Amino acid sequence: MKAELIAVGTEILLGDIVNTDAQLISRGLSELGIDVYYQTVVGDNPDRLRHVVETARDRADIIITTGGLGPTLDDLTKETLAAVFGQTMALHQPSLDRIKGFFQSIHRPMTPNNEKQAWLPAGCTVFVNEWGTAPGCAFEAAGKHVLMLPGPPRECDPMWQQCAMPYLRALAGGCIVSRNVRVFGLGESNMEAILHDMMQNSTNPTIAPYAKTSECYARVTAKADTPAACEALLAPVVDEICALLGADVYGVDVDSLEQVVGDGLRQRGLTLAVAESCTGGLLSKRITDVPGCSDYYLGGVCSYANAVKTGVLGVQQHTLDTVGAVSPEVAEQMAAGVARALGADVGVGITGIAGPGGGTADKPVGLVYISVWYAGQHFTRRMRSVNGRDRVRMQAASTALDLIRRNVFEQK
Amino acid sequence: MKAELIAVGTEILLGDIVNTDAQLISRGLSELGIDVYYQTVVGDNPDRLRHVVETARDRADIIITTGGLGPTLDDLTKETLAAVFGQTMALHQPSLDRIKGFFQSIHRPMTPNNEKQAWLPAGCTVFVNEWGTAPGCAFEAAGKHVLMLPGPPRECDPMWQQCAMPYLRALAGGCIVSRNVRVFGLGESNMEAILHDMMQNSTNPTIAPYAKTSECYARVTAKADTPAACEALLAPVVDEICALLGADVYGVDVDSLEQVVGDGLRQRGLTLAVAESCTGGLLSKRITDVPGCSDYYLGGVCSYANAVKTGVLGVQQHTLDTVGAVSPEVAEQMAAGVARALGADVGVGITGIAGPGGGTADKPVGLVYISVWYAGQHFTRRMRSVNGRDRVRMQAASTALDLIRRNVFEQK
Repeated sequence: MKAELIAVGTEILLGDIVNTDAQLISRGLSELGIDVYYQTVVGDNPDRLRHVVETARDRADIIITTGGLGPTLDDLTKETLAAVFGQTMALHQPSLDRIKGFFQSIHRPMTPNNEKQAWLPAGCTVFVNEWGTAPGCAFEAAGKHVLMLPGPPRECDPMWQQCAMPYLRALAGGCIVSRNVRVFGLGESNMEAILHDMMQNSTNPTIAPYAKTSECYARVTAKADTPAACEALLAPVVDEICALLGADVYGVDVDSLEQVVGDGLRQRGLTLAVAESCTGGLLSKRITDVPGCSDYYLGGVCSYANAVKTGVLGVQQHTLDTVGAVSPEVAEQMAAGVARALGADVGVGITGIAGPGGGTADKPVGLVYISVWYAGQHFTRRMRSVNGRDRVRMQAASTALDLIRRNVFEQK
Repeated sequence: MKAELIAVGTEILLGDIVNTDAQLISRGLSELGIDVYYQTVVGDNPDRLRHVVETARDRADIIITTGGLGPTLDDLTKETLAAVFGQTMALHQPSLDRIKGFFQSIHRPMTPNNEKQAWLPAGCTVFVNEWGTAPGCAFEAAGKHVLMLPGPPRECDPMWQQCAMPYLRALAGGCIVSRNVRVFGLGESNMEAILHDMMQNSTNPTIAPYAKTSECYARVTAKADTPAACEALLAPVVDEICALLGADVYGVDVDSLEQVVGDGLRQRGLTLAVAESCTGGLLSKRITDVPGCSDYYLGGVCSYANAVKTGVLGVQQHTLDTVGAVSPEVAEQMAAGVARALGADVGVGITGIAGPGGGTADKPVGLVYISVWYAGQHFTRRMRSVNGRDRVRMQAASTALDLIRRNVFEQK
């Protein structure tokens, strides 16, 4: 089967945003074994959208649109697709109730234009949107499958995974199962070099390397008639990858480093507190991205000013005066200090220069010291990144989590 | 003039990479006042590429391709475009010399397939590639302009800026200027309802509404012969929008709420400290996303555990026992407490239930209290969001910044 992607949004044509939805969906279609020959972006213009849809209809089995489902005048995707495929529109009462409920819950009046979001092609499969107000939908007409998803990635991403992928999987037949081997401490190209021979010789399951900010993963995908048959194909390959990559593998099919660290702390009955300077709260934010983190996370201190390092965390003024705030000594005092101040079993300290300003010859932009304190011991790492403020901070926060995983958990 | 973008690369159709070249080029074309109605992605397949190019030729004045200029067999962009436009190919000796020189400089033999990169449409304008081996080029045929650039962003980006933009600037004439009116406290549909009549009646400048997480903006775009003429068209429209939207406008052409708040604090010589419970460090992270924030930001405390609220921030146990941690009283004590503990002029307290667990009938998931303490006064807001953990936290952090903007800055 062939699918074609159509993104509807003038903001993409103006270059205001990049079409990440296309990547998400293309990758998913690739996993499902559905070919994509064309992706198109068109603006919020009914004539041009109609033209693009007609072209896609003539060359693809599946048309997937993103964007243009919202309440405003220039949101025209549903109306245009319905017209091309001769569908009538109907009010979908459950969706309207949902939208009304949303506005009630935030104590705001629902403007009349919001009702438009609940008008969908009659008889379609509705994709409930739990991440925004505009539902998505799917219908079949003239032997073609049409799927429509909202444009904002925070809505499109979960709806693709949870609504559209299962819908398409049912069409595609057979079964596809993937495992993600998550890695920290090894770059993508190094990982690929280690896995090169395996990758070359693998057809089912396939092995594909991916990079994420400051980490990477290997995705192993098997196709078979049943989930059990997929699992049987996957297990030995995943085991071999884990053996080749060793301690740099932090988990298989886990969500994130913060999830793995949280689970490990909970299992061991340990509590955590963090002290951050250059990461400015990012590590604390990531730890608290995980629901239920109050089981093990007590809290954190962002000590941007040195007075907070000394006053709240007990970093010694003498240390700041002699070796400076960006030093292993200060990272260690922050880690032990925040554990003491908040009464935690494990403490983290991060101090560095995120940039773009503030660097010197001795202490350049991108230099960060990260320390974990646990049971009277310090585990400290020096890190240097040259990839800009956001990535320096992200990598420093990941390194802190990785230090906990490698040292606190391995000790038990 | 109308331009159309064609990206050539199977790796985009597989979702291995995202088409950032399209954003780069679209943004540049927007600046040049050249309309983009379509972007297309097609794989390394000569028939499909030819089809896409023929379609583009019939509806655009300018065709810009990215990708497919390399040495391998599936790099077919130049050959296909030349064929569609009836151009012959010719060896471009300076490009061949350049490629040979590159291989000499890295002490590697040049494989014969690399010579292919020096074959270009006869008589074209050559875009020298100083960032890789494959040159780009431009030619005019049948009244259309064709430009070809390499695909890798590290090559495409500088060649777009330094070769293609100047080439097009000479063709385009005129100019386009946009203003973004940034809004917090009003949903996109409400904003559009207020601006509806203006939007309907506007052709130059145009007005378009956009939504971002927990905020929205109106983009006003004018076309004219000169930047000054664009400005003259924009100014009265932007003023009218600001007047209609009132205090919900937090800035025009500003980066973010955190930037506006940071600038306001710096101008007034005020310092800031924040205490976060459910946002878990997100507000602190956003404040420190802004380079130079150490001018006004002292730091923060993430008081996830109640013991941290009492111990570090001085929240009263009695208050926690009687009204609970999620209450306006605790938000206010956190705000005043963190300002006192860190010695800041302005304090923020955030307490709430981000979910998915932890809600009750009285205090449902998504309920957050946010308080700003300044000069002995509390400014406190109750917020309720039903959009999931991430957006609850994002909106709570934005609300805190908005409270500072509206109350601390307006007092002066």
